[in-house]
Amino acid sequence: MNAAYPELEVRFRRIAQINGALGVLHWDSATMMPAGGADTRAGQIAALGLLAHERLTDPAMGELIAAAKAVGGLDEWQAANLREMERQWRHATAVPAALVEARSLATSKAEMIWRGARGANDFKALAQPWQQVLDLTREVAQAKAAAFDLSPYDALLDEYEPGGRAARFEPLLDELAAKLPALVDRIVERQAMRGAAAPLAGPFAVAAQRELGLAFMRALGFEFEHGRLDISHHPFTGGVPDDVRITTRYDEADFTRALMGVLHETGHALYERGLPPAWRHQPVGDARSMTLHESQSLLIEMQVCRSDEFIGYAAPVIRAHLRGEGPAWLPDNLARHYRRVARSLIRVDADEATYPLHVILRYRLEQAMIVGELDIADLPGAWNEGMRALLGIAPPDDRDGCMQDIHWPGGSYGYFPTYTLGAVAAAQLYAQAKRDKPEIAAGVAQGDFKPLLAWLRMHVHGQGTRYSYDDLLRQATGRPLQLDDFLHHLETRYLA
Amino acid sequence: MNAAYPELEVRFRRIAQINGALGVLHWDSATMMPAGGADTRAGQIAALGLLAHERLTDPAMGELIAAAKAVGGLDEWQAANLREMERQWRHATAVPAALVEARSLATSKAEMIWRGARGANDFKALAQPWQQVLDLTREVAQAKAAAFDLSPYDALLDEYEPGGRAARFEPLLDELAAKLPALVDRIVERQAMRGAAAPLAGPFAVAAQRELGLAFMRALGFEFEHGRLDISHHPFTGGVPDDVRITTRYDEADFTRALMGVLHETGHALYERGLPPAWRHQPVGDARSMTLHESQSLLIEMQVCRSDEFIGYAAPVIRAHLRGEGPAWLPDNLARHYRRVARSLIRVDADEATYPLHVILRYRLEQAMIVGELDIADLPGAWNEGMRALLGIAPPDDRDGCMQDIHWPGGSYGYFPTYTLGAVAAAQLYAQAKRDKPEIAAGVAQGDFKPLLAWLRMHVHGQGTRYSYDDLLRQATGRPLQLDDFLHHLETRYLA
Repeated sequence: MNAAYPELEVRFRRIAQINGALGVLHWDSATMMPAGGADTRAGQIAALGLLAHERLTDPAMGELIAAAKAVGGLDEWQAANLREMERQWRHATAVPAALVEARSLATSKAEMIWRGARGANDFKALAQPWQQVLDLTREVAQAKAAAFDLSPYDALLDEYEPGGRAARFEPLLDELAAKLPALVDRIVERQAMRGAAAPLAGPFAVAAQRELGLAFMRALGFEFEHGRLDISHHPFTGGVPDDVRITTRYDEADFTRALMGVLHETGHALYERGLPPAWRHQPVGDARSMTLHESQSLLIEMQVCRSDEFIGYAAPVIRAHLRGEGPAWLPDNLARHYRRVARSLIRVDADEATYPLHVILRYRLEQAMIVGELDIADLPGAWNEGMRALLGIAPPDDRDGCMQDIHWPGGSYGYFPTYTLGAVAAAQLYAQAKRDKPEIAAGVAQGDFKPLLAWLRMHVHGQGTRYSYDDLLRQATGRPLQLDDFLHHLETRYLA
Repeated sequence: MNAAYPELEVRFRRIAQINGALGVLHWDSATMMPAGGADTRAGQIAALGLLAHERLTDPAMGELIAAAKAVGGLDEWQAANLREMERQWRHATAVPAALVEARSLATSKAEMIWRGARGANDFKALAQPWQQVLDLTREVAQAKAAAFDLSPYDALLDEYEPGGRAARFEPLLDELAAKLPALVDRIVERQAMRGAAAPLAGPFAVAAQRELGLAFMRALGFEFEHGRLDISHHPFTGGVPDDVRITTRYDEADFTRALMGVLHETGHALYERGLPPAWRHQPVGDARSMTLHESQSLLIEMQVCRSDEFIGYAAPVIRAHLRGEGPAWLPDNLARHYRRVARSLIRVDADEATYPLHVILRYRLEQAMIVGELDIADLPGAWNEGMRALLGIAPPDDRDGCMQDIHWPGGSYGYFPTYTLGAVAAAQLYAQAKRDKPEIAAGVAQGDFKPLLAWLRMHVHGQGTRYSYDDLLRQATGRPLQLDDFLHHLETRYLA
């Protein structure tokens, strides 16, 4: 027997437990912690992060991995686990500790400045600390590129999307950039002819909105023995597979966003909860990647919960919880609220038809930034030009332009493409699921999501990190990621 | 400059951060965690506990402590910090790792069995695992006794009450055992002559009870920028000084216990919050001991909040929050609810006059258990005999007898005396505070607790672990711990 491999499982379990504890600390920071606890919490999080990093970069780790590979004798899941262990270890050891720390300090500083500067539309205040983050991120990208024999951009991307390569998905993004503007024109024109949706008059008490969200979570299969719903300023999914914590925020004047936010996070939560129980606390038991995670949230939110089937089932449930009356609360009008397409400035508010254009802009700009062809000082101009080219509109200021997202000041370069790859994967997976099992769409129309969840458990959730995203799609749908189902979905939903 | 000392501060800060993270995990387990998260959480807590222990017992630690002591050149606070570092390190290294682990497993098992067995009144099911905990605790006590040159009991006590010695406080407990039964007789007789208090008719909505508790917390000086109030099955104070988390539980039929529970935990919380800010994350910045901690909760709950001054101020506030009407809600009747003295079976329900008798019973029994003169099989008989001797009553079964507390099955031997030492210290400190500053009692009568808090901050909270409990009392009151103020307090409150 391979003695090194079991030792690696013990070590990675410990690291997973530290990371699980970090998950609780992050969740608590966003939901429960009083403001005065922030400094102490930052210290706790830094200390635990360092402990996990120290464990992962322990000198013995490389030898154990080499020994485990040399001896072999592993089954398919163990081999995949070892592959993922090595990937994590290589990412952790590829960058000198001093550079890791310098970048961590620079991103903390830039994020803090961003919070104030964005609201004040003060690009000048942010430019220099942001450039520092970019410089250090370029250094990290160079170091990882050398270690992985990848382009600098792919080396960053690989953290969020293991095995993801720009050369693979850039043609998909280019095709979307070519096709979506005309499609959006047709949708907007068609929706303009129908006129505006009838308003849904509030206010809607937070307690009632919460109960409504809980009802749909329960119906979708969220297990409250293994999770919670709370409030935070930015909705997210946290915790661990046996204790999944999702959050939302409520607006008493408009229930529609909080509700769809809950459904989106429920998609993330179902993925986490469905990860293979036999591989808890091991890398092969983790969620595959950001693309796959976003595919699961968007499959629930966009593919399922904005469908005619779902809205038909949901409308009376919504009316009952919120005491809605009159024709504005009929499925057709609710669907118009949930399917409005418009060119807009802000990514997080964008609909599913225009969202990829926001992502393509960011992908092109971050590629240029990482290879050194674009500096922060020139970003506002490049941003506005890109917005005009892709969306036909330009922001009046940087607040609603290049400063709108925290990702780049926070050091997350190579992350944005996963949003759109996830949307495309969601369409491909849901189309296949409905082809495989006709009872899935029929179930959605009746509020019975068991057939859908069973299919996702088998083909996506339960696979952990066994496959790359392309291989997982091949196993589940017979084809690697491709655009047909996504484009077909948009045409069917918005133009049929 | 002493190079070893600053290195020790760095190392102990890291350990404090891990322990702070553990505090969040424990708080979350008791307040927020869904049941299905328990197994994963236990793994996270064990992993972090082991990390903290590894750091504390790092081979370099002993050398650094020796070097720091040899070089000297420390100011008074630094020297106290070094003393506490050494104390923690000696406790951690005195016991072989295998014994620590065996005891930890045995206590986890016995605690789990206790939860079921107590309710079922099934002493037999608990006896063997409890005896195993006792056997291993005796071994730990022997190992620590050898390392510290103390008696085995004192070696255990020293964990909860650093520097506390049985020979020092046993005379106080014996004096209480001699005097309290007659005092209790007189109080009970007197209260019987007055008849029962008029009932306070509920139900009392949890939300209203919570608001009432928050109002008094605010008045007492609890800073909500640095803390929270939540619900748990067993009330406790957790978190860290900059983020103190207290809990209570509510009974809609009876608000009095939840309210006094909140005030008790607020006393603990004010102590944590008032620890010296310059020494955060260092041993000298910690709370002194269990005795001092309990002195602070009981000073607020028993000395202040059951006083005539407080009840006079609080009665209209309570009435306003709970919509109480009629003579039952006048201060005199509320005071009778909050000051009823009765011999009873359950420690946690006991009043301040009989509580020490419960503690003395436990102290005598645990002394005998640790020196090997009493085994678990003989505990029920010894318990019932002791109850009859000290309190004049005996339990009908072990559920309300020797199985009522989790402490011993959980391995906490040497803890019980701190409850009564804390009660005695509370009386001594509050009497001195009122002598020092007449505005303290006048403030309490008006709901102004600033003079009291200022006195406690200066004489207790802000001192961290600089002094032993006796030295702290000497500094604050001119005398070491003694019984006069406690006995005087009981006579004044209940017999005057």
